[in-house]
Amino acid sequence: MTHRLLILSRHADSYRHHIEAAALPDLEIMSAADPDALPEVARRCDLVFGEPSLIAKALPRMPNVRWVQATWAGVEPLLNPALRHDYLLTNARGVFGVLMTEYVFGYMLAHERRMFEKYESQKQQRWDTRPPGSLRGKTIGLLGVGTIGATLARTAKHFGMSVRGFTRASRECVDVDAYYHGSDRLSFAAGLDYVVSIVPNTAGTRRLIDRDFLAALPATAVILNPGRGSVIDHDALADALSAGRLAAAILDVFDAEPLPPEHPLWRTPNVLVTSHTAALSIPADIAPLFIDNYRRLVRGEPLKYRVDFNLEY
Amino acid sequence: MTHRLLILSRHADSYRHHIEAAALPDLEIMSAADPDALPEVARRCDLVFGEPSLIAKALPRMPNVRWVQATWAGVEPLLNPALRHDYLLTNARGVFGVLMTEYVFGYMLAHERRMFEKYESQKQQRWDTRPPGSLRGKTIGLLGVGTIGATLARTAKHFGMSVRGFTRASRECVDVDAYYHGSDRLSFAAGLDYVVSIVPNTAGTRRLIDRDFLAALPATAVILNPGRGSVIDHDALADALSAGRLAAAILDVFDAEPLPPEHPLWRTPNVLVTSHTAALSIPADIAPLFIDNYRRLVRGEPLKYRVDFNLEY
Repeated sequence: MTHRLLILSRHADSYRHHIEAAALPDLEIMSAADPDALPEVARRCDLVFGEPSLIAKALPRMPNVRWVQATWAGVEPLLNPALRHDYLLTNARGVFGVLMTEYVFGYMLAHERRMFEKYESQKQQRWDTRPPGSLRGKTIGLLGVGTIGATLARTAKHFGMSVRGFTRASRECVDVDAYYHGSDRLSFAAGLDYVVSIVPNTAGTRRLIDRDFLAALPATAVILNPGRGSVIDHDALADALSAGRLAAAILDVFDAEPLPPEHPLWRTPNVLVTSHTAALSIPADIAPLFIDNYRRLVRGEPLKYRVDFNLEY
Repeated sequence: MTHRLLILSRHADSYRHHIEAAALPDLEIMSAADPDALPEVARRCDLVFGEPSLIAKALPRMPNVRWVQATWAGVEPLLNPALRHDYLLTNARGVFGVLMTEYVFGYMLAHERRMFEKYESQKQQRWDTRPPGSLRGKTIGLLGVGTIGATLARTAKHFGMSVRGFTRASRECVDVDAYYHGSDRLSFAAGLDYVVSIVPNTAGTRRLIDRDFLAALPATAVILNPGRGSVIDHDALADALSAGRLAAAILDVFDAEPLPPEHPLWRTPNVLVTSHTAALSIPADIAPLFIDNYRRLVRGEPLKYRVDFNLEY
């Protein structure tokens, strides 16, 4: 049988280019960047590849869909209970570890090296010899240890850090020195130098970083959140930073994005806002996930990176 | 025989604490932070441990010195031809790799992640989604591949980079993909994304980064100099940066330090000044070098990290 694919993405042309180059069998391809201006023929597509936010808008007009491959790791727009869940949903995994690691270690080193303080000193032609710190011997806590967490843990070991992992149940990563679960949340936080949240947005991860968690962290701790905004109670975070009970927060994701200009987090002391760019989906990295999964579909094999609508990831 | 040690350092108390804790045999210890206020008894010392800049001032008044252990890697003040060179000089090595690596990779990641641009955007509450770059697949060129260079090369490999090494003759580091020497200087420069200078200040390294070298680099290249200021022609560098023929320079060291407030490099576009803090000598790291070498001296073994006054390192 012939499959009909709709590529629905802001980068539709680039994705189309990569997929056409793969010369996949029995595949008709159409593409669009705007879910509100789909050609009538898109109604007949059985496959969709693209951004969850766009696909969520198109889904009600696409009765034949049986498989959706998301270009993102997060699929929240498609979990909306008002939408159909009677198709196979796969997300993007295994491709964000490198970018996430560069983000996390870049900003941790920026903190240790006092980069922004020295940058401000330079504006005043001030020779600023305040001594930097080092990652060596410090402790990093990973909220979530999937493929991204494992990549972070390996780099943490390269820099001589201790690594704690907070997971639902898994204990598979050899670079994690100590695992914590469920009710161990506050002992996980105690004594950490850095906390990095990379958990998906699910009922079980919402506000994991709340007032109690923040109170359990040392005042010298730094939080990095390149995962999902829902994990942090941002009011409690702003209070802790304003009171000097936390050293810094590097925030890529928020409850509402873009972060509105009037939001207090823009000006909260020691907050750095990185505008959801920690690990962008790059077509050259993401297209191979669709191509590999399509070949599995044609061969009748299970698809990789399947999302469980009940687990929300 | 009993040895008499003068610790001459801004951190004399800390060094003295570490050395006394080692309970070295047959050693009398005195210490000072000011070479112009030495006790008369310091004249009788045969050993000196401290900062080369301070020791250079004290040396003419210390006729019995037979061994000097420097707390720094660079020993230029002691190479002054007006000073005696009739003693054994050892410097600090093998301890700066970790800090140098954190400096170099911290600033390379800051460049890739556009950290200072995003920091300025935040001041205007601007959601800045300009995409960051990645170190993966980029090429780093190391001017000098000793113990520091080897540590940098290993971390470059961790981040998926290609590594070139420019050395006098050595080709020992397995993490260097391609070696260059002498007249290969401009082919070494061609195509580099990053250049890191970690060579000592010698006749052979002065102005290695000159107009020709800068012209051979791509306009997207970034120079990092945590080594010695003498390696760069700073006038040529400022011209290249002002003309957009180079992306950025991260400079820790200069011909004269502190960099005077009126110096144009403070305000040259895309220069970051880090005020000679890339790899500070930390007593807990450096004291063991003296302790180990003292035990070798007592046992009649060759000392480690000996400086050759003719080679200047």
